[in-house]
Amino acid sequence: MKTNKLRWVIIAPPPEIEKWVAVFSSHAPEINLEVGPDVPQPETVDILLLWNHPKGCLAPFTQAKLYYSLGAGVDHLIADASRRQGVAMCRIVDPKLSFSMSNYILFAVLHYQRQWDKYQRDQQQKHWDHDAPSEREVRIGILGLGTLGTDAAIKLDQLGFSVVGYSPSPKQLDNIPTYAGKDLPVFLSSCNVLVCTVPYTPKTHGLLSSPLFDQLHPSTFLINVSRGKVQIEKDILSALDSGKLSGAFLDVFETEPLPPDSALWEHPRVYITPHVASITQPAAGVHQIIENSQLLQQHRPLKHRVDEEKGY
Amino acid sequence: MKTNKLRWVIIAPPPEIEKWVAVFSSHAPEINLEVGPDVPQPETVDILLLWNHPKGCLAPFTQAKLYYSLGAGVDHLIADASRRQGVAMCRIVDPKLSFSMSNYILFAVLHYQRQWDKYQRDQQQKHWDHDAPSEREVRIGILGLGTLGTDAAIKLDQLGFSVVGYSPSPKQLDNIPTYAGKDLPVFLSSCNVLVCTVPYTPKTHGLLSSPLFDQLHPSTFLINVSRGKVQIEKDILSALDSGKLSGAFLDVFETEPLPPDSALWEHPRVYITPHVASITQPAAGVHQIIENSQLLQQHRPLKHRVDEEKGY
Repeated sequence: MKTNKLRWVIIAPPPEIEKWVAVFSSHAPEINLEVGPDVPQPETVDILLLWNHPKGCLAPFTQAKLYYSLGAGVDHLIADASRRQGVAMCRIVDPKLSFSMSNYILFAVLHYQRQWDKYQRDQQQKHWDHDAPSEREVRIGILGLGTLGTDAAIKLDQLGFSVVGYSPSPKQLDNIPTYAGKDLPVFLSSCNVLVCTVPYTPKTHGLLSSPLFDQLHPSTFLINVSRGKVQIEKDILSALDSGKLSGAFLDVFETEPLPPDSALWEHPRVYITPHVASITQPAAGVHQIIENSQLLQQHRPLKHRVDEEKGY
Repeated sequence: MKTNKLRWVIIAPPPEIEKWVAVFSSHAPEINLEVGPDVPQPETVDILLLWNHPKGCLAPFTQAKLYYSLGAGVDHLIADASRRQGVAMCRIVDPKLSFSMSNYILFAVLHYQRQWDKYQRDQQQKHWDHDAPSEREVRIGILGLGTLGTDAAIKLDQLGFSVVGYSPSPKQLDNIPTYAGKDLPVFLSSCNVLVCTVPYTPKTHGLLSSPLFDQLHPSTFLINVSRGKVQIEKDILSALDSGKLSGAFLDVFETEPLPPDSALWEHPRVYITPHVASITQPAAGVHQIIENSQLLQQHRPLKHRVDEEKGY
């Protein structure tokens, strides 16, 4: 295929560039991946590979035919006013990403259900307490049934957990009751572990906040693996204090890195990971990117294309 | 059915007695469950429900027709010389037990794969390290493919993990390679997470010891959820020091409660839980016990009967 006739530029933070340049040179040495945003003659660049690129840097790439997000999320791209309308946007849909994300969710659920904190404290104190409280009954609600949320729902169901799901438009899953549209309050009151897997869009901005928490079953355990701007952190802290939330397992934050003065760091019922729930493995994504570059040259429909209306 | 014509006695530690008496009185109020071992006219007792009973207390029950273990394990019963030969032994095979055991194994695997220790330390130090080492590749080996081991193997496979299994006699599982008999060394060298789910028998006594660890891939992570006497704890500590084992997640111990002077408590790569991987829920077991008592009266084959030869 003639992928080498296209001109490719990557714009991303240095560690990402390093990973992707390495994987392209081993999997597709015929592609010369230039590192942007400052490249000569940007107007002749065809494909832009983007991850957390500096906002506003896309304007000089006047003939770009494809913006490729180097992850599952595209909010960094959608939000950039310098991107040219009508240019196709794709994202990586990586089975390993689902594997990794579902495992993270599962770990957080089991950490809660098994009361791991207690066993750790007991070990530190050399205290053997076999009559520990029994496992917590969990009723898991998956908020957002996209690729990742659906994968997690199916796997948790296979393990024998009770799972319900919610998505804005109706979605059918085997064995798993789902709610849609106006039934959000019913969904929220039916679970005691809420897992947020929604994409970040104007509609989900600040969704995890007091008005939503007020509709939860008391002492719901929150797990957020989507995007930080989906949550209002001061509301999470209030809900923890009031008992609406029994704990929060958070991989994403309003500001990342999480600022040192955030009260989340030290809260005894908050568990923090640095946005690692799922990390796209370049080796898994490179084939999709190359396949799409070939479809682009053949003027055929692209895979994993972003719906600009929906924002994901 | 005429279960109330039988005479029933339970012999177990006080917290177990409390749970089982409560569940019998709610599910089978017609059964008068007497608490042993000291009861009048022991020679007229028909069914003995047993869990960690004092050794040697079974002799007076000369007409007992059924010894029922109130859990999945029967080593406490097999090892008691005061039991009468030829009396049927049954154990509880509880789907919730598998659910619980598989979840425990999964939690231990994810704790290792996700390097949870690191994220906890980082949170304590308010340190945001997004470039954390990526998830560890895990190749899980399930040693023992009984009900519990098989359930764990199937669930880990469904989640997308690489799983192999070993049992003394050949066993076929969909998608999961299995080894048997003399192939133990091949099995041991093919995994980097070893999960022990064998029953405790004379053959498995001290199985997890230096000769076995020497056949492992270097830095294998050990998870033991079977019985403490299957492991030699000083050998586990040596293998941790030599690097043969990278860590150990242990739910069972040679002596329980684990003595305060055990070096396991403070070892930085040992994770201890107080024999809670799976706790039989009386509500799940009571129906099996009653069904078997009916089969006993009808002189029909019992379910979940222990094979005295095999010892489980």
